[in-house]
Amino acid sequence: MTTEPVRILAGPLRQFTAAVFEKLGVPAADAAIAADILVAADLRGVDSHGVAHLAPFYVQRIRDGRVNVTPDIRTVAEDAATAVMDADRALGFVAGHRAMRLAMSKARENGAGFVTVRNSTHYGAGACYAVMALEEDMIGISLTQGGVAIVAPGGRGKGIGSNVISVAVPAGEEAPFVLDMSTGVVAGGKLELAALNNRPIPAGWAVDLDNRPVTDVKKVTGGILPLGGTPAFGAYKGFGLAVLVDILSSVLSGDITVPEMDETTSFPGRATHFFGALKVASFMPVERFKQRMDEMVRAHHALPKAEGVERIYLAGEIEAETERDRRARGIPLHPDVVASLRELGLELNTPDRL
Amino acid sequence: MTTEPVRILAGPLRQFTAAVFEKLGVPAADAAIAADILVAADLRGVDSHGVAHLAPFYVQRIRDGRVNVTPDIRTVAEDAATAVMDADRALGFVAGHRAMRLAMSKARENGAGFVTVRNSTHYGAGACYAVMALEEDMIGISLTQGGVAIVAPGGRGKGIGSNVISVAVPAGEEAPFVLDMSTGVVAGGKLELAALNNRPIPAGWAVDLDNRPVTDVKKVTGGILPLGGTPAFGAYKGFGLAVLVDILSSVLSGDITVPEMDETTSFPGRATHFFGALKVASFMPVERFKQRMDEMVRAHHALPKAEGVERIYLAGEIEAETERDRRARGIPLHPDVVASLRELGLELNTPDRL
Repeated sequence: MTTEPVRILAGPLRQFTAAVFEKLGVPAADAAIAADILVAADLRGVDSHGVAHLAPFYVQRIRDGRVNVTPDIRTVAEDAATAVMDADRALGFVAGHRAMRLAMSKARENGAGFVTVRNSTHYGAGACYAVMALEEDMIGISLTQGGVAIVAPGGRGKGIGSNVISVAVPAGEEAPFVLDMSTGVVAGGKLELAALNNRPIPAGWAVDLDNRPVTDVKKVTGGILPLGGTPAFGAYKGFGLAVLVDILSSVLSGDITVPEMDETTSFPGRATHFFGALKVASFMPVERFKQRMDEMVRAHHALPKAEGVERIYLAGEIEAETERDRRARGIPLHPDVVASLRELGLELNTPDRL
Repeated sequence: MTTEPVRILAGPLRQFTAAVFEKLGVPAADAAIAADILVAADLRGVDSHGVAHLAPFYVQRIRDGRVNVTPDIRTVAEDAATAVMDADRALGFVAGHRAMRLAMSKARENGAGFVTVRNSTHYGAGACYAVMALEEDMIGISLTQGGVAIVAPGGRGKGIGSNVISVAVPAGEEAPFVLDMSTGVVAGGKLELAALNNRPIPAGWAVDLDNRPVTDVKKVTGGILPLGGTPAFGAYKGFGLAVLVDILSSVLSGDITVPEMDETTSFPGRATHFFGALKVASFMPVERFKQRMDEMVRAHHALPKAEGVERIYLAGEIEAETERDRRARGIPLHPDVVASLRELGLELNTPDRL
């Protein structure tokens, strides 16, 4: 049995994914947005947030009635540069796309736009929304509440969210700067991957219920540590960033934060978001800004390097390289993922198959 | 010889500090702002950014002609929700205070306001500007370029800035949420303190030129590690946050970033900043928001605790306790600091002495 990845081009993968959502009752325009964002994550190399999760996450949640396929997404509060949206339990892709567009339209008018979203669901890879701003020469910001996964400093067991910070900044000839990070030492996907491949994890990623570092994923009875790891090495910074994201996404949108959730208020995949856009042209001529971004990138590349290091990578550079390669050669998917997608296509009788 | 701290009340300390700045040619209103911010840092317990640095940092730089005591601080670009200011080498306190006020006035009108500042100097503790927003029920953001201190992943020796992220969020009965962090594993002040007290530092804070962790501060020939420490534990996140702060403060204001600096473009204490304000009332009624912040804080306090832990502290809670204590009992200063301030008072012939 081979585990060689199967390469599928972005176009057909997007078309197939959209067809799956349509078959589940998602309107065509929304299905196209959801497919775009899932495949965009795969193109960037964020495999943990791409089509591999289509069947187990999104399809399952639509079938469970957790996700509303025909939501009434409304703007419930608004100012010149801000808004609050209620997603009505929409697919996070659809709510996120609409909210990011609103933030950008406000930035177009006023220089800055910020939109919080309550009552939403998992929106995939945060960077996919931040990079939308690049098309209009804006800086894009995308934050989201993540599932409960992280141990607060002083806490016992996971109590706070694996919340995410994504920021995209346009450049000229260089790749755009795209930061896309969870506020834990590692994203939950890294542990899933280690479990799948039966590999140990480095001591310092996660702990048991007594806060002892463990290397066997099965023994992670506590949770993942916040970025920084332990208090002496900055855990309060990772913890602070995680809580900040929850405040901006949840409190500021009128929703609940991760430590407030229980069985009655939560369900797998619930989420809140916060989007922002800053229009570069409000600060300086766009061409000048992009030239300066290129110079900034090159100055980092030109820093003295450690022995054996050929290149210093800035946030988003590896993803840009991956995207170039995958656009040309297709997205490499695990054969099990391809099999599950083909099964889904048969079952739903999608017009196109993979 | 005693090293017992000497307690001095905030009022007289502020008055003395303002008098020092005035004697050096700073206009009275600006001197009062600078003194306010320095003493506010001491009140919060950020001793590394308070009056202890008055003589060696600020007074010295004014005397060296690095800081312009009568600057022409100008807004060089502006939109409804954004602005760029040129600080004309002002004291960072004065430029920062003016820029944060501008961001708040834009947020008052439009819900959000963001102001970048170029050509400025060291502005002390970042939190002092973020908390200004609390007075008007806004969320405050304050970012600043720091001095070159951090080793980029893959780099050899310090190459990027000890850049700072500060965010303040108003609460009701609970202490406001105030995150105030450098994007390194530790702030440079922690190394200064260890050197001063001849104490070792934990392996993992800083490295030598060959990227080996060192515990003797004198052997830190490389620099401090980015938050996360090593790539396996999230160093690219700390690095990414540091670069992001430099982009928003420096590229977006039309100034240069840390890795672009050399002897011809830099001087000790140069800095750039980025300020933001989000008006809570644009998102929801202020009272409702504050109540929800209190509930969010209490939900974190109520999380299961590790053995022996009495309380989980959120960002800003310890500082709020420290401030209550120091307002009542005075700010504890090292006797050497008090001696240096008294000497400064004699030398400048300030009207009040400490």
